[in-house]
Amino acid sequence: MSAQKTFKGYAVTDSSDDSVWTRSLLDTNKWSDFSLVEYPSKKFEETDVEIAITHCGVCGSDVHTITGGWGSFETSMIVGHEIAGTAVRVGSKVQGIKVGDRVGVGAQIGSCYECKYCKSDNEQYCPKMIDTYASKYPDGVRTQGGYSNGIIAHEQFVFPLPAGVSNAEACSMLCGGLTVFSPLVRNGAGPGKKVGVIGVGGLGHYALLFAKGLGAEVYAFTHSHAKEADIKKMGADHIVITEPGFQEQHARGLDLIISTRDAASGFPLAEYLSMLDVHGKFICVGLPDEPIAGIPAAAFVPNGCFFGGSHIGSKKEALAMLALADEKGIKPWIEELPMKECKKAVEGVKNNKARYRYVLKQDIA
Amino acid sequence: MSAQKTFKGYAVTDSSDDSVWTRSLLDTNKWSDFSLVEYPSKKFEETDVEIAITHCGVCGSDVHTITGGWGSFETSMIVGHEIAGTAVRVGSKVQGIKVGDRVGVGAQIGSCYECKYCKSDNEQYCPKMIDTYASKYPDGVRTQGGYSNGIIAHEQFVFPLPAGVSNAEACSMLCGGLTVFSPLVRNGAGPGKKVGVIGVGGLGHYALLFAKGLGAEVYAFTHSHAKEADIKKMGADHIVITEPGFQEQHARGLDLIISTRDAASGFPLAEYLSMLDVHGKFICVGLPDEPIAGIPAAAFVPNGCFFGGSHIGSKKEALAMLALADEKGIKPWIEELPMKECKKAVEGVKNNKARYRYVLKQDIA
Repeated sequence: MSAQKTFKGYAVTDSSDDSVWTRSLLDTNKWSDFSLVEYPSKKFEETDVEIAITHCGVCGSDVHTITGGWGSFETSMIVGHEIAGTAVRVGSKVQGIKVGDRVGVGAQIGSCYECKYCKSDNEQYCPKMIDTYASKYPDGVRTQGGYSNGIIAHEQFVFPLPAGVSNAEACSMLCGGLTVFSPLVRNGAGPGKKVGVIGVGGLGHYALLFAKGLGAEVYAFTHSHAKEADIKKMGADHIVITEPGFQEQHARGLDLIISTRDAASGFPLAEYLSMLDVHGKFICVGLPDEPIAGIPAAAFVPNGCFFGGSHIGSKKEALAMLALADEKGIKPWIEELPMKECKKAVEGVKNNKARYRYVLKQDIA
Repeated sequence: MSAQKTFKGYAVTDSSDDSVWTRSLLDTNKWSDFSLVEYPSKKFEETDVEIAITHCGVCGSDVHTITGGWGSFETSMIVGHEIAGTAVRVGSKVQGIKVGDRVGVGAQIGSCYECKYCKSDNEQYCPKMIDTYASKYPDGVRTQGGYSNGIIAHEQFVFPLPAGVSNAEACSMLCGGLTVFSPLVRNGAGPGKKVGVIGVGGLGHYALLFAKGLGAEVYAFTHSHAKEADIKKMGADHIVITEPGFQEQHARGLDLIISTRDAASGFPLAEYLSMLDVHGKFICVGLPDEPIAGIPAAAFVPNGCFFGGSHIGSKKEALAMLALADEKGIKPWIEELPMKECKKAVEGVKNNKARYRYVLKQDIA
């Protein structure tokens, strides 16, 4: 055990100081105002790694959180859970990581390490899982994210980065990439399988890249022609514009659909379900604030299909994803900004301007 | 090939003769009026079996159909797809069935026999599947159900009945039983698994009996104490009254839920989903006419669970179900009526009076 350390980060606050209080849901006109603050980390333990952050991706979750879309939260809040950097301190009990290694951290930073989920590469489903930000350690220390200069994390949630994937490339894989990679591999995406991807944004572009990288035949579903050229470059085998009747020629044509769509209104769920082969699965990783339509129970009968959810991914899957990216040369489509421009980045995500993922580069002195 | 044969059955009609027309959806005041009519069967082929019907179960589908709840239909309509009887004529190409054998037919009476579904014990998902009634053969002959004295069926859809399961006991298993047996076995119900059953009616009582027979630990969910004694006799290990907060002590406690509930209003779906273990499945075999609530996408995330549908079962599963009933002495809870009392039976089903399945006994001279 060791004393807490102080890091600096770009926080959303409700006041000129960095005291902790509950940000009003209604006070959203300031949602994208960030201030550089100092804050205390968790205590360093011998199973921990301290990371000097070089890059942090900007995730839709950051925006849902700081706009209050997922509920109220305490300030000062430092978001960011797509972290890459350098290990600068490594606890004596940590295995496989040494000072100087390039490492990353995703959206989870703690679990119980003992339950059946933790013991079966399902630690992301541990009932005591701790989010990388907006959560608390058992001792009450708040977790703070990666729009900052450093973080201390348990080795379970620190992923060594392969040589062929730079920090800038790796960071946004660790939430955005993993969130689609896990349901792809858990539901059989690979050679001989046909995988549909709904929505081509930050998550969707990763779903296209990884589904293709895993060897599946990939169908991209998009509502307009605007991104067609990009979608082809990402490797989709087929592009389907979701105009009325789009599903008809694809009846039972897909084994798996990954939906990254973040809007519930007008969601053509029954049409999508009709494109699944028998016992095929529709996995919804986009999380609209509103419920999606009503469940037409009868739409699940003709093909015995499934609608399901998924929660990020395990360390085992993160390492497999990074290895695949390294082996296949999979490059995310990212736009780098200095970290102090986080306001521009979160507003860009909110306004669907990301093509396809913003990455913040360290600039805190 | 051979000429069509004429059978007699209890039909819903819109007129005093048995001409075929479209029954008005609005003309539902006569929905449960039956008349004894004569009608032509399909032509007998060498792959067919002709069955002298002794018993026919009364299924919720019969009621959905003749009330117009599932849409308009042609009259005269003879419903009933839980058929048991005696093979009285067996085609030269039929294997494993001889004249005099006790046999049954369920809700499906045809398929293409050639597609990947038919070739993989998934014939119930064949795109060319033919329903036992309210459907048509490729030559245009309408299928008519089992409230009648006979039926001709392709051997694929004729199930030999084991010695220990009487015709009266077997018939309602062939739709009601199979509809829950198939998703139970396809989703792993067995020793070491915890299976929830929602709704204890015709389908639900079978789900309890078979989940227990398969060796699972069984939880029955019911909205009142009215059926508690029955539920215990059916073998449920636990009874949960669905009062507010019922889900809390069962968080992640179930591997599989089979929902037989036939009403969408007020369906506590998120509460049920929270009771599933990681990647657990909620299978909806009750088909409310209205959509079930909105899909709360976020409710699928914490445990990566699934909502799915299912369509009856395969012949392989039907035979396994009958063998299990024979081996374990599983007896359905049935009430026998003469077939001419089909009006009373369908009205009983409509008013939830069945305890738990009506069986019509042959009385056509």
